[in-house]
Amino acid sequence: MTRLLQSLPLLTQLRRYRAGDARADMAAGLTTAVMLVPQAMAYAMLAGLPPHVGLYASVVPLFIYALLGSSRQLAVGPVAMVSILVAGGLADMAVPGSDQYVALAVVLALISGLALLGMGLVRLGFLVELLSHPVIAGFTYAAALIIAASQLGNVTGIALEGKRGLLPVLGQVAAHLGEIHSATLIVGVSSVAALLAIRRWAPRIPAALVVVVGATGATWLLGLDAAGVAVVGAVPAGLPSPSLPSLPLSEYGAIVPTALAIALVGYAESISVAKAFAHRGGYRLDPDKELVSLGLANIGGSLFGAYPVTGGFSRTAVNARAGARTGLASAITAVAVAITLLFLTPLFTLLPKAALAAIILVAVIGLVDLAEVRRIWHVRRKDAGLLAVAFLGTLLLGVEEGIGLGVVVSLATFVWRAARPHCALLGRIPGTRVWRDLAYHPEAETVPGVAVMRVDASLYFANAEHLRRKVHTLRGSMGDPLRAFVLDASAINDLDSTAADALLELAHELEAEGVRFLVAGAKPPGRQVMERATVCRTLGDEAMTLDVEEAVERAQAMPLQERRSA
Amino acid sequence: MTRLLQSLPLLTQLRRYRAGDARADMAAGLTTAVMLVPQAMAYAMLAGLPPHVGLYASVVPLFIYALLGSSRQLAVGPVAMVSILVAGGLADMAVPGSDQYVALAVVLALISGLALLGMGLVRLGFLVELLSHPVIAGFTYAAALIIAASQLGNVTGIALEGKRGLLPVLGQVAAHLGEIHSATLIVGVSSVAALLAIRRWAPRIPAALVVVVGATGATWLLGLDAAGVAVVGAVPAGLPSPSLPSLPLSEYGAIVPTALAIALVGYAESISVAKAFAHRGGYRLDPDKELVSLGLANIGGSLFGAYPVTGGFSRTAVNARAGARTGLASAITAVAVAITLLFLTPLFTLLPKAALAAIILVAVIGLVDLAEVRRIWHVRRKDAGLLAVAFLGTLLLGVEEGIGLGVVVSLATFVWRAARPHCALLGRIPGTRVWRDLAYHPEAETVPGVAVMRVDASLYFANAEHLRRKVHTLRGSMGDPLRAFVLDASAINDLDSTAADALLELAHELEAEGVRFLVAGAKPPGRQVMERATVCRTLGDEAMTLDVEEAVERAQAMPLQERRSA
Repeated sequence: MTRLLQSLPLLTQLRRYRAGDARADMAAGLTTAVMLVPQAMAYAMLAGLPPHVGLYASVVPLFIYALLGSSRQLAVGPVAMVSILVAGGLADMAVPGSDQYVALAVVLALISGLALLGMGLVRLGFLVELLSHPVIAGFTYAAALIIAASQLGNVTGIALEGKRGLLPVLGQVAAHLGEIHSATLIVGVSSVAALLAIRRWAPRIPAALVVVVGATGATWLLGLDAAGVAVVGAVPAGLPSPSLPSLPLSEYGAIVPTALAIALVGYAESISVAKAFAHRGGYRLDPDKELVSLGLANIGGSLFGAYPVTGGFSRTAVNARAGARTGLASAITAVAVAITLLFLTPLFTLLPKAALAAIILVAVIGLVDLAEVRRIWHVRRKDAGLLAVAFLGTLLLGVEEGIGLGVVVSLATFVWRAARPHCALLGRIPGTRVWRDLAYHPEAETVPGVAVMRVDASLYFANAEHLRRKVHTLRGSMGDPLRAFVLDASAINDLDSTAADALLELAHELEAEGVRFLVAGAKPPGRQVMERATVCRTLGDEAMTLDVEEAVERAQAMPLQERRSA
Repeated sequence: MTRLLQSLPLLTQLRRYRAGDARADMAAGLTTAVMLVPQAMAYAMLAGLPPHVGLYASVVPLFIYALLGSSRQLAVGPVAMVSILVAGGLADMAVPGSDQYVALAVVLALISGLALLGMGLVRLGFLVELLSHPVIAGFTYAAALIIAASQLGNVTGIALEGKRGLLPVLGQVAAHLGEIHSATLIVGVSSVAALLAIRRWAPRIPAALVVVVGATGATWLLGLDAAGVAVVGAVPAGLPSPSLPSLPLSEYGAIVPTALAIALVGYAESISVAKAFAHRGGYRLDPDKELVSLGLANIGGSLFGAYPVTGGFSRTAVNARAGARTGLASAITAVAVAITLLFLTPLFTLLPKAALAAIILVAVIGLVDLAEVRRIWHVRRKDAGLLAVAFLGTLLLGVEEGIGLGVVVSLATFVWRAARPHCALLGRIPGTRVWRDLAYHPEAETVPGVAVMRVDASLYFANAEHLRRKVHTLRGSMGDPLRAFVLDASAINDLDSTAADALLELAHELEAEGVRFLVAGAKPPGRQVMERATVCRTLGDEAMTLDVEEAVERAQAMPLQERRSA
């Protein structure tokens, strides 16, 4: 029990807790709550859910993460990227806003929570490293544009039909420009303007709260709801009551892919935010523990009516800037949201949806970072190409498909590169026994009739054939008749049976053409496999040498062989 | 035109053609045909097709491959593995043996031919290298057992219902033991015994022909067909007439996955057989040209009623042993099959299906190679584990699913390993400026307060984080307070922007703890990326050194830094 308690990061953090910390956490928690309440309702709307589901997702998951999470500033809750995934995944399964739709969203939280927990327990946190940064960037920018487009209906008052995606929505808006509802557009545009102005000139003021209060007040004063401005309407008061997600088992299968996409994207966003703030705060995160904490936060949330949550960038930044020192700040945020749910929901009745849409618009447009695109283009053109593929794929195919494409393209480029390790021709640095890459050491000398090649990777089935091809290309390009080929195996730290077979095949091929094959500097793990696969026996003991110099000396001392084939 | 003709391998082979070659090719072609005719009918039966479709697949594709293929011995035609894939892929789409089923099989040949051709044109031949040898082996052994089981109905006379897979079939046979048809069982068992006996004691005799002739003769003499032994029945005489595959476009989508599986498995089998015989014959193959030739063979075949073909092991071995010297041998085989189709089909009317089933049984059981399993286990236990996964996956999930699992597991293990490159701590070999892996050079000396690490791979998004973790693990394990960390970048031949960011992050982290970060021996391509990503500027010019020795000297000369964080 003591060990269990010691393993809770919050308790560790609280052990050295001082009065100053408590004041800082209290201030940060309340500041974050002021931002969270309108955002939670806005993102729930983005996900196609009633606003109170966003608030439910801002209570229990926050308590759980505060207790278990290793980040001290991470603000967990509804975020834009996950919300659009929820909307996309459930669009064809139920009517947005219906009871069944809400039930499906809660089950999504349960399943993605289980997926996160499972990944954490079997230590799969590294999986997220398989998404390259340019792919994540391209995906994020495209998703931001799609999300922004999805809110055009709410800020213009044009009724958009079910279609999603940037181009269909823009097309619909263009076709129905005559149906713009002026009062709605004015609320929407002035909300966006207010948000941008406050962010620009008074960043310490809680812009979302100002907009929500201002827009609600204007609606009340001017009777905008009667004039046709869509408002949030009645939000059920009270805390979520515990209940098990109820869904026929047959429906689970259909939402598992969406749940996995949510788990992956949510975790990728959360861990990169948490890492950035851990770095500034001078402490380290355990990615696998983060998976477990986020998983339990989602599972716990789903038992109290929440839809999927993760750590988001903007609120974490506010939380940290407001001085959060421990997870207690998040717990205070959760208490504030709970109080809002108990007592303040009547205030949201007249809140215009256009104001919430403006909050979403400004939040996601801020995600598009052109400077980062330029930086990646400058650092490495190929990476900018990957970014473009992920961006266009997401824009044209859809958000979930964009992630899938991103994962596939990321992995394919990595496999493509890893399957083509660098093979360097070596020469001797004059006056030494040291052999180095001829490409970078023009002063290095070669020995006539003896080629020396080093492969800069361990050899496996996927790259062994590449080595064989390189050797043959090299032989084709050499003018001299070759008497020996030396493979510098000093970078081969591991070898599998397919690669050992490829070495055997290479040895036979070289032997058939009268070329001796020597292996220099093989290390114990690789050498063991070569011995068991009879590579050493086939080559002969004298062909396995300690280093390149020894191999070249032996090769020069060996009698010339005849070619076997004509 | 001349260039086009010169690019046809057959014409190149024929330029030095002599009378002796013609005699050898003629003998080999006829020997192979004697083996091919019964096998083609048997494999067509395995695929759920009427026997003449197997013969159609043994005419046009062989001519095309003979003209274009770069292997001189490869015997193209129906093979067991592809036939079981056809049966599996079409099982749910049409009734085996029906006209629609035959039409679907012909379309499969067209689509898998197009896939092969496309892969060859964009030079994707290397894709097959991503299937590791143990995975192919495990898949093959399981598929062989499934194929063998599928023939139990034909050799026992028990009517098996549609179910496929080893266990369902064995279960059905066990449940219906009482329904064994004695005459069928006698034909089946004696055929198997004859095949095994001839292979063991008289390998030069065409066993399949002997069994076919013997079983047909026995049926005629004893009237076995009237006694209930299933026979092939009427085989339509005449050559296949050219026609375009006719299938509603809507059906194409459903068979594309099967067509891709057939292309991949067929190519993998063909190229490994062709390589083995090219190796013995002392000539080299071009994998991409092989893809194009096999692709055109299938496309051409599909226009003449053939189902998918590829190069098979057993007939290629017979063709080579019988002395085939050029593709002309294959052309002669095709002519012999065409003559069979024109004049000899009435002879097959009384051929018992049990004899054909016996031919399949003996062919596929020969594929299971326990010695190879033992060898792989001996060479590398982990590879035996991969074999077991592919074997059990194929056996329990099915043939197509088994290939899918094999590809995924192969790639996952490769990505897993490539994402964890070897990181070696280095020490100076006494009296030199050479730094080597401390694990293998216990005599090497370290410098107090300076850690030197080499990473044996290029750095990309997928493995950069591994390096960062290794550095932190190392720092945690070192007793001395560290003043400098030197990264030997001599094996980093390439770097992407995500990896450059990880280096920046590492530099900041080390700096925050008062540790200087130096990079030694970075090569131009990687160094360029590091410069553009501001790694060099962040570290300072004096931190980028030519080699490890210089880095260590500079590190010792630098003033101690203070830790920034408490």
